[in-house]
Amino acid sequence: MTTTGQQLFTMLTAEGELILELSEETFAEPTGSQVLVKMEAAPINPSDLAILTSAADFENAHYSPGKVVAKMPEPFLSGQKARHGQRLPAGNEGAGTVVATGDADQAKALMGARVACVPGNAFSQYALADAGMCLPLGDHSVEDGASSFVNPMTALGFAENAKMDGAKAMIHTAGASNLGQMLIKICAEDDIELVNIVRREEHVELLTKLGAKHVVNSSADSFMADLRAAIDATDAFYGFDPIGGGKAVDNVFKAMEQVAVAKMSEYSRYGSNQQKRMFIYGRLDFGPTILTPSYGFGWTLSGWLLTPFLQKAGMETVMRMRQRVLDNLTTTFASSYKRKVDLEGMLEKEAILDYKQMKTGEKYLVTPWG
Amino acid sequence: MTTTGQQLFTMLTAEGELILELSEETFAEPTGSQVLVKMEAAPINPSDLAILTSAADFENAHYSPGKVVAKMPEPFLSGQKARHGQRLPAGNEGAGTVVATGDADQAKALMGARVACVPGNAFSQYALADAGMCLPLGDHSVEDGASSFVNPMTALGFAENAKMDGAKAMIHTAGASNLGQMLIKICAEDDIELVNIVRREEHVELLTKLGAKHVVNSSADSFMADLRAAIDATDAFYGFDPIGGGKAVDNVFKAMEQVAVAKMSEYSRYGSNQQKRMFIYGRLDFGPTILTPSYGFGWTLSGWLLTPFLQKAGMETVMRMRQRVLDNLTTTFASSYKRKVDLEGMLEKEAILDYKQMKTGEKYLVTPWG
Repeated sequence: MTTTGQQLFTMLTAEGELILELSEETFAEPTGSQVLVKMEAAPINPSDLAILTSAADFENAHYSPGKVVAKMPEPFLSGQKARHGQRLPAGNEGAGTVVATGDADQAKALMGARVACVPGNAFSQYALADAGMCLPLGDHSVEDGASSFVNPMTALGFAENAKMDGAKAMIHTAGASNLGQMLIKICAEDDIELVNIVRREEHVELLTKLGAKHVVNSSADSFMADLRAAIDATDAFYGFDPIGGGKAVDNVFKAMEQVAVAKMSEYSRYGSNQQKRMFIYGRLDFGPTILTPSYGFGWTLSGWLLTPFLQKAGMETVMRMRQRVLDNLTTTFASSYKRKVDLEGMLEKEAILDYKQMKTGEKYLVTPWG
Repeated sequence: MTTTGQQLFTMLTAEGELILELSEETFAEPTGSQVLVKMEAAPINPSDLAILTSAADFENAHYSPGKVVAKMPEPFLSGQKARHGQRLPAGNEGAGTVVATGDADQAKALMGARVACVPGNAFSQYALADAGMCLPLGDHSVEDGASSFVNPMTALGFAENAKMDGAKAMIHTAGASNLGQMLIKICAEDDIELVNIVRREEHVELLTKLGAKHVVNSSADSFMADLRAAIDATDAFYGFDPIGGGKAVDNVFKAMEQVAVAKMSEYSRYGSNQQKRMFIYGRLDFGPTILTPSYGFGWTLSGWLLTPFLQKAGMETVMRMRQRVLDNLTTTFASSYKRKVDLEGMLEKEAILDYKQMKTGEKYLVTPWG
């Protein structure tokens, strides 16, 4: 039995053209623990945009049905040399119905079930996935389950990572994001103090209504003072940042250090002994990360990715996290979407220019069967 | 019994004047495990310059015997707010003769001995030190012992830290420095592969003569290719940087990632899984640290300071390290000095403008008794 269907590919040529294109593909029969999922819903996440749109010029791109060709400027063209000429699938996660399985019992048990999965080619009418990584959705809809991996597991991962590191409070620099809103609920459930940084006054209200106790607005004149007060109140010397570029992390380290120094009785040229720990888990800002020499030597900054974290955390923790997601799929871990598009629709100019901005609360859902 | 002598103080006023001044001080009688050391030699280390000269304008300063007043520009004036108005002693380390002791046996045993110590006010004719932190120099001269703590223990600390972290190779971005030259010998003794980055072609020769196997010149057109080749040959994904500002660390992370990516069979938008680890242990460049988004998320950057490291390493390790320094004081851990100055001499314009440049191989030694 062979299955054919539409799938999206993204290719960056050495000459600087980013080509997004639908293609009729043949999907192999699942073997062993594999299942073939008829993909019915897949969110466009920031992590997908890294290869889908990156820094290419979609304002002046060439659009035709099922195909877009956009120029990639430097230094982003050279910076992605390793992918030049490679035809890459896209779409980390999604949900659909299992239509064929391999011989393993684990796979066969899923036949006909609605599942969420992380195939890496979710922008497709079909995808092969490993049964062990599939989350059976039971009575939940594919729309409820489409975003059940990336954001929920990342937000839960922050809480798990904090517990591993003995941190009882944390800062999140994108408090109003879909992930940030999940984190507010997770931290409340897990007794972790959370300082939310947002960019707009209306987001302060939004998060406060969700139960957030500490929300500071980075656009306010009092931002640094507000941030210091929140750190002082929570002892949050630990945090996560999806912005990456600019001074988002620098501001946090500065405020942390100022809080710590204010408690020192003696001046030290080396700064405080307070260890300050931040993780960058995204690149909403493609610019370089700027770290000013204003918080001594007691700080550590790391990149953070979900997959290596889950590997480090171990299978037992991962299974516990996934069960928690399933148990709270329509509450703590609910996602909402601004608009649904099919595969052709996601390659239209208006759609791309909109979803590539990654605005808070304006996520797109791809429904490959329309 | 009271002892009086000259001591250097540094003060930064809120109005932006950095004042370096000699003062006649009375030194308290040592009690308990304390000893009073007649200070005979103290090096001017980069870590001393952080409070001694910082970013002040010594070209246009006002000089008088035993006193200098220099303007501190922004943002360095505001950045050091915590020390405004504080009269700080200076001089991390030095060596001299114990002339009085407290009652503890450990202290009394040092009476009359030549010792190296880390009093924090080594630019002084006398200093109180804890006997437990003194290194008895035996037949070694005070000049041999003056620099036996900061650079030797830092260089040994890198090797110890690498072993704790399971790293068998490391990169040092200031290979030709006094500390860098020690590190070459330590790494050879401890079977740690070392990649040295230097800024001048003559330093390549210098370090090669010292037995360094991997020396790359950051001024060469082939720098990045040379660095990649050295990382590929050594598997050095771990390193230490005293520059801090600019792209010193960024270049290293980039080269590490390029080496790792070249070994990957499949492209990943998240970069390689190779963990890349760097530590900033100094601020030779006061500018901000620039981290470009060109090495994925598998990296960690920390500040590194000797004292917290030694606390973490524990007393047993520290004692072993100190013994190793003493056993190799005139070989592996030898320091050389460009010039000797007394306390008044270290406040003269010509001297300050020279030593504040922190040039390789041009360290000053302060001899408080002339």
